[in-house]
Amino acid sequence: MKGKFYGIGVGPGDPDLLTLKAVKVLNKADVIICPKGKEEEDSIALDIAKEHIHEKAVIKTLLFPMVHCKETLKKHWQENTSIIEEDLKAEKQVVFLTLGDALLYSTYIYMMESLKQQGYEVETISGITSFSATASTVNLPLAKGKETLTVLPLTKDGESLERLLPAVDNLVILKVSHNPKVLAEKLKQYNVENNFVMISKCGHDDEIITRDIQVLEEGNVPYLSTVIVKKGGF
Amino acid sequence: MKGKFYGIGVGPGDPDLLTLKAVKVLNKADVIICPKGKEEEDSIALDIAKEHIHEKAVIKTLLFPMVHCKETLKKHWQENTSIIEEDLKAEKQVVFLTLGDALLYSTYIYMMESLKQQGYEVETISGITSFSATASTVNLPLAKGKETLTVLPLTKDGESLERLLPAVDNLVILKVSHNPKVLAEKLKQYNVENNFVMISKCGHDDEIITRDIQVLEEGNVPYLSTVIVKKGGF
Repeated sequence: MKGKFYGIGVGPGDPDLLTLKAVKVLNKADVIICPKGKEEEDSIALDIAKEHIHEKAVIKTLLFPMVHCKETLKKHWQENTSIIEEDLKAEKQVVFLTLGDALLYSTYIYMMESLKQQGYEVETISGITSFSATASTVNLPLAKGKETLTVLPLTKDGESLERLLPAVDNLVILKVSHNPKVLAEKLKQYNVENNFVMISKCGHDDEIITRDIQVLEEGNVPYLSTVIVKKGGF
Repeated sequence: MKGKFYGIGVGPGDPDLLTLKAVKVLNKADVIICPKGKEEEDSIALDIAKEHIHEKAVIKTLLFPMVHCKETLKKHWQENTSIIEEDLKAEKQVVFLTLGDALLYSTYIYMMESLKQQGYEVETISGITSFSATASTVNLPLAKGKETLTVLPLTKDGESLERLLPAVDNLVILKVSHNPKVLAEKLKQYNVENNFVMISKCGHDDEIITRDIQVLEEGNVPYLSTVIVKKGGF
């Protein structure tokens, strides 16, 4: 059997949100690659998928540091790609685990593009996105009828928010903790400060759901927070 | 046990893209509601989920006609909601099947909102979206890093396309067959006619993948077609 590289989106956290396809691929995998952001951390993706990994699979946790320096990032990507390549050359079935969906804001994308370019066979298996799961928690529609849906990770300068907020119908804002104050300011500027909900630590015991603009203005927002804006109202 | 209303996103077509959670809920369901758009059609959602439905479950196929007349739509929604309510009053576990994700462009949304308002317990189970699966088929990233992702169903007048195309980074266009010519025109106007891919009948035997603007210009696009625009290039 030829070596093959799989990317599996394991969803946002609940192990039951894995797909049947993900479980089938995990069952036949020789090597499981689990990304983590910090040396001292465990891999969250591994934690979600672990009950479906069989005993004989080799688990490799690779470091993908969350830094902004492109050179450091590239160095890690290249090193990690080389580790994966060794297994592919040895005709292994290699699975890369990624949170949420595999093709949306994941480090898998860089590995996949590089390995595809080098002629390796790749297969991506979709996962449930964090915003689908967040919307489900509060039973809030993301978009209906002719409405549009935009997803953006909030940046420190708020540039993409500034660019898109006037044009969207529904907006999912990820990484709210990067700059909640600029978000509050923009929501007020476009008169939609009453048309948002923020869900923090979704699915955890200390989950917080709020529609109070003051929480954003105070700037004290947990790391895992998502805002959904519905310009047409709730 | 009290009656409860569940919405399950069964994903875009491959039965293996159901989540484990969806399967667990299907296993305990008393009633399965399957929407269909035309009287003479079968329910596609039922076809995807059927192998996980146990023998004792009652399957009810309800008609949700694809018409633009709001009065006709509302009449059907109300009739269908009443049918579901009867089962909930009889303390049944009622599952509504929906293609893709349950909270994105689904008729489930209207049932859920109405039943939630009336005080019934509801639970939504996320599904894989059609665009995640489409992107997986061609191993194309939907968004990475600080990029944004916008999803819009193409309308006959192209209004939301006109409004959003200048501001987005990555764009998923659903229902391309509604007006491929206006899409071609707008892609050219914003100089992104080389930055798109169209996937028609994704996952079917007669799947078509094209990056040729002429196909859009000729206006002959199959019903199940999705376009992904990457303004930053491929």
